[in-house]
Amino acid sequence: MNEAAITLDGWYVLHDFRTMDWSSWKQLSAEERQAATDEFLAFLDEMQQVDDAKEGAHAFYTVVGQKADFMLMTLRPTMDELNAIENRFNKLTIAEFTVPAYSYVSVVELSNYLAGESNEDPYQNPHVRARLYPELPRSQYVCFYPMDKRREGEDNWYMLSMDDRKAMMRSHGMIGRGYAGKVKQIISGSIGFDDFEWGVTLFADDVLQFKKLVYEMRFDEVSARYGEFGSFFVGTYLDSDKRKAFFEI
Amino acid sequence: MNEAAITLDGWYVLHDFRTMDWSSWKQLSAEERQAATDEFLAFLDEMQQVDDAKEGAHAFYTVVGQKADFMLMTLRPTMDELNAIENRFNKLTIAEFTVPAYSYVSVVELSNYLAGESNEDPYQNPHVRARLYPELPRSQYVCFYPMDKRREGEDNWYMLSMDDRKAMMRSHGMIGRGYAGKVKQIISGSIGFDDFEWGVTLFADDVLQFKKLVYEMRFDEVSARYGEFGSFFVGTYLDSDKRKAFFEI
Amino acid sequence: MNEAAITLDGWYVLHDFRTMDWSSWKQLSAEERQAATDEFLAFLDEMQQVDDAKEGAHAFYTVVGQKADFMLMTLRPTMDELNAIENRFNKLTIAEFTVPAYSYVSVVELSNYLAGESNEDPYQNPHVRARLYPELPRSQYVCFYPMDKRREGEDNWYMLSMDDRKAMMRSHGMIGRGYAGKVKQIISGSIGFDDFEWGVTLFADDVLQFKKLVYEMRFDEVSARYGEFGSFFVGTYLDSDKRKAFFEI
Amino acid sequence: MNEAAITLDGWYVLHDFRTMDWSSWKQLSAEERQAATDEFLAFLDEMQQVDDAKEGAHAFYTVVGQKADFMLMTLRPTMDELNAIENRFNKLTIAEFTVPAYSYVSVVELSNYLAGESNEDPYQNPHVRARLYPELPRSQYVCFYPMDKRREGEDNWYMLSMDDRKAMMRSHGMIGRGYAGKVKQIISGSIGFDDFEWGVTLFADDVLQFKKLVYEMRFDEVSARYGEFGSFFVGTYLDSDKRKAFFEI
Amino acid sequence: MNEAAITLDGWYVLHDFRTMDWSSWKQLSAEERQAATDEFLAFLDEMQQVDDAKEGAHAFYTVVGQKADFMLMTLRPTMDELNAIENRFNKLTIAEFTVPAYSYVSVVELSNYLAGESNEDPYQNPHVRARLYPELPRSQYVCFYPMDKRREGEDNWYMLSMDDRKAMMRSHGMIGRGYAGKVKQIISGSIGFDDFEWGVTLFADDVLQFKKLVYEMRFDEVSARYGEFGSFFVGTYLDSDKRKAFFEI
Repeated sequence: MNEAAITLDGWYVLHDFRTMDWSSWKQLSAEERQAATDEFLAFLDEMQQVDDAKEGAHAFYTVVGQKADFMLMTLRPTMDELNAIENRFNKLTIAEFTVPAYSYVSVVELSNYLAGESNEDPYQNPHVRARLYPELPRSQYVCFYPMDKRREGEDNWYMLSMDDRKAMMRSHGMIGRGYAGKVKQIISGSIGFDDFEWGVTLFADDVLQFKKLVYEMRFDEVSARYGEFGSFFVGTYLDSDKRKAFFEI
Repeated sequence: MNEAAITLDGWYVLHDFRTMDWSSWKQLSAEERQAATDEFLAFLDEMQQVDDAKEGAHAFYTVVGQKADFMLMTLRPTMDELNAIENRFNKLTIAEFTVPAYSYVSVVELSNYLAGESNEDPYQNPHVRARLYPELPRSQYVCFYPMDKRREGEDNWYMLSMDDRKAMMRSHGMIGRGYAGKVKQIISGSIGFDDFEWGVTLFADDVLQFKKLVYEMRFDEVSARYGEFGSFFVGTYLDSDKRKAFFEI
Repeated sequence: MNEAAITLDGWYVLHDFRTMDWSSWKQLSAEERQAATDEFLAFLDEMQQVDDAKEGAHAFYTVVGQKADFMLMTLRPTMDELNAIENRFNKLTIAEFTVPAYSYVSVVELSNYLAGESNEDPYQNPHVRARLYPELPRSQYVCFYPMDKRREGEDNWYMLSMDDRKAMMRSHGMIGRGYAGKVKQIISGSIGFDDFEWGVTLFADDVLQFKKLVYEMRFDEVSARYGEFGSFFVGTYLDSDKRKAFFEI
Repeated sequence: MNEAAITLDGWYVLHDFRTMDWSSWKQLSAEERQAATDEFLAFLDEMQQVDDAKEGAHAFYTVVGQKADFMLMTLRPTMDELNAIENRFNKLTIAEFTVPAYSYVSVVELSNYLAGESNEDPYQNPHVRARLYPELPRSQYVCFYPMDKRREGEDNWYMLSMDDRKAMMRSHGMIGRGYAGKVKQIISGSIGFDDFEWGVTLFADDVLQFKKLVYEMRFDEVSARYGEFGSFFVGTYLDSDKRKAFFEI
Repeated sequence: MNEAAITLDGWYVLHDFRTMDWSSWKQLSAEERQAATDEFLAFLDEMQQVDDAKEGAHAFYTVVGQKADFMLMTLRPTMDELNAIENRFNKLTIAEFTVPAYSYVSVVELSNYLAGESNEDPYQNPHVRARLYPELPRSQYVCFYPMDKRREGEDNWYMLSMDDRKAMMRSHGMIGRGYAGKVKQIISGSIGFDDFEWGVTLFADDVLQFKKLVYEMRFDEVSARYGEFGSFFVGTYLDSDKRKAFFEI
């Protein structure tokens, strides 16, 4: 048996993708739509207060294409809080006009492939804490995809030695570092929680950087031979006015 | 032909995952919702009485993310009783406001890979009985996933010798033992009953232990080369008050 | 090109799996439900008369788990009769309260891998006839699954010589024979008729025998290397009283 | 790069599979159903006139099992006509009571693997024309399935030399010829038009011949190593009276 | 790690496939249908004005077969504009009578495999600009399919050297050039934006050219060994009168 990487785990994460049922939504009166929108925006404001108190984080983006109409990504200290938020959302009026499209359950993760070695408790290290309990930026674009490490014939990540895995992950990390300041990356682990092994959430103000980063990484052995990817979702940030307009008919 | 492992088989198991149709549920009056909730909670109380009488067992958890809203896991001495319980649930009022999300049919199983050798009838051994006819804990979290042993090219579990399989399963068991007191594990066999070969149900008070256990096992050859996994479901336990609140609008 | 096995073909078979729409069913009055149930039970009685006249056969089982609520398996001398029965079922009142869940079209098949060699016309042999035009038992449990022989890389059944295939099938048959008196097995061929190559229907009074048989066979090379399996369905037999109760609210 | 086969292309083909929504259909009055049926049968009569004028062809079959209730296969000189026919069908009253089940877009194709060599323009050859612009028989049974040539590891059809492909296709053709008079076969190409590479439509008065033909071919290297198959649909022909009865409640 | 190709990226692209809900559409009065059609055609006219101003491009085609009823393909300078157009479409009356069928998010892309080498800024080169910000032709037919480069065992595109990839892409490009004047080809990259890596959109006045082009390419090593294809959609162009007729009942 190979040595498993040791991970540091931070906030739990729920990515919740929903499709609007525009036909039913249009059947509401303008007042009813306004009330439902206001209730939802107030719910998002509450979420923002938790962000401001640094007791969690969230991001709300509209999604391009038919996969979903919007994504609500929420980070919290416990799985129970995620469940409660999901449950609260389902009881909002607007939820009656949405259809579940996709969701993902994970926990923010740092692996020891990349961690420095030290005697101190990493959970006390402010740099580590900033990554485990991250603020989410309000970048113009978001990208989410789940992924696995491949276990097929000669291409079996989990049969590699720790050293081989470490070397490949460092090379991978170097590519990521080349996008510092352009793309913010949140890695969350989902083994035991959801169908893939990791979720990757990227934030950028230039949407093309997602394509450049993922494309460059694909030539790296760790992705080329060992990466298996799920669906990719890309979304855009709406400021407060556009957010209202999005729900207006 | 290789020798098949001999299994000991206990109670039959139905994992029943349901999604709430919140929109229809909201259209009921508060009284109607209350009556439907009370009827369902009374049904769960009856289930509990069977647990108390040690004539079966059950677990009720809300599920995080869109895969389902709750899971009812039921263990009974016969397949017919599972069918009857499923049928009873379908006739509850609350069932009209749920949509089937996923189900799994299996039987609690111990394999002779791990069993000690002895002349006594294992079904009379109290340690064995406690595992075949288990009490289910009321841990804060549950994790369920179905799995297969791989049969692909060079990675074909069913073409290995009994000795090779036994050695790998023992190593696997050692990892599990490292989580004793942290994670309770129920293995149920489903060959001939459902689409995967086994179902794995984990209980823990620290949800992160699911991730640690499954991740550590993934580096073990039996998982790395031979494990094929279905969907992962993670759920949270609601005490009686939270259970009521869950169904309140 | 390898020599194809010669098959003997008997009655055509339709496995028809349906899910009840319990919500709509409950909206009927008790009288309407009673009338619809009576009409359906009368339809099943008519089916039974064909069985009694040995002009066909059928089996009706409730299915455990969410894959379906019941399965109606019908055997007839022609494909047209299956089509007509399906069409008749669809026009019953109860059909309005069911949703198609899965179906399988095949023909009872004996292959020459297992057949004895003889000069006589096998279709005149009473033992062969009893297998091609079988009576279906009223065992307490049924198991159905479709399967393929694998054609992948080194594991390509259809590239093997007739002798290799024959040897493996004989070994496979020996396992089946070990379950004589415990499990009745109907093999039906579906190449050219449905998505898999064969359907397997098992009947037993001890449901655990399905698991033991399929598990034991999985270690046999013909399954281990060459078997590809579809979904497994397991069902329970309801006598006349339980059948009525099943549809009662 | 290997030499591509040159194909001769004839009429465009739409296979259109539909499921009846029997519940809604039953809610019509007998007169409304009669009117909708008459309108549809008149539409089929118009189709027949095009067949009679040899300006196209069509076939209408009921489908056995839940995959669909009927298939309308239409051949026309242009893709636009197929689109127009589909659009006309969608505007018939009966279409409101059907649900799309599957469709396939292709063009009748002869490949030069099997073609004789000659200097004449093959499109002027009456034997070739009869195959590119075929009359469809009114056989009792139809079978349809789409298929690909495999491109996997060592089994990559498109990496073989023209000579190897030609030799295998000739052997394949020989099997087909063995069914002359029993099974009429229409091959249509769908590369660039639909998800598989070819559609195969078989007509026979003895439904068992589909199974025998497809089974025998499966042992031929071109299928055994290089064939990938989609769903199989089998249907029965209804004469005018049975056709009316099919839609009667 | 292998060197990644450098890409030039132009307008963002949304392919939006929709199925008509003809049953609901028929329930409108002729006046309501007329109004909804007029509103949609006015929306398409507005799209045309953007094309005329060369600030974007669009194409509207009806789709043959059940995969969709029509495709609206839109090119714009920013992802946000695509999101806005999708949102505007969803609020049109006609959208209430459509069901999302498939969508694809990408960006027009030229790769340096095929680019000439030069010191000038390629984004200033008028030939390059004409390809990155293309006018879409009003050809009679359109074909769309998404694709990946394979990463499986020995057939792993991303593990090849830049030279090998370049040689294969040049050969591939030569085939495309053979169809100059017959097929116009738009390649758009979707790594990081959608589930496949590229989208291919073809325009032609002879629909058979799609089949010829894709079939010929399939024998080229880059497709034969490294191409993985998603669904193929084929559509026909409707002029203004036919467009109205399409929506008439």
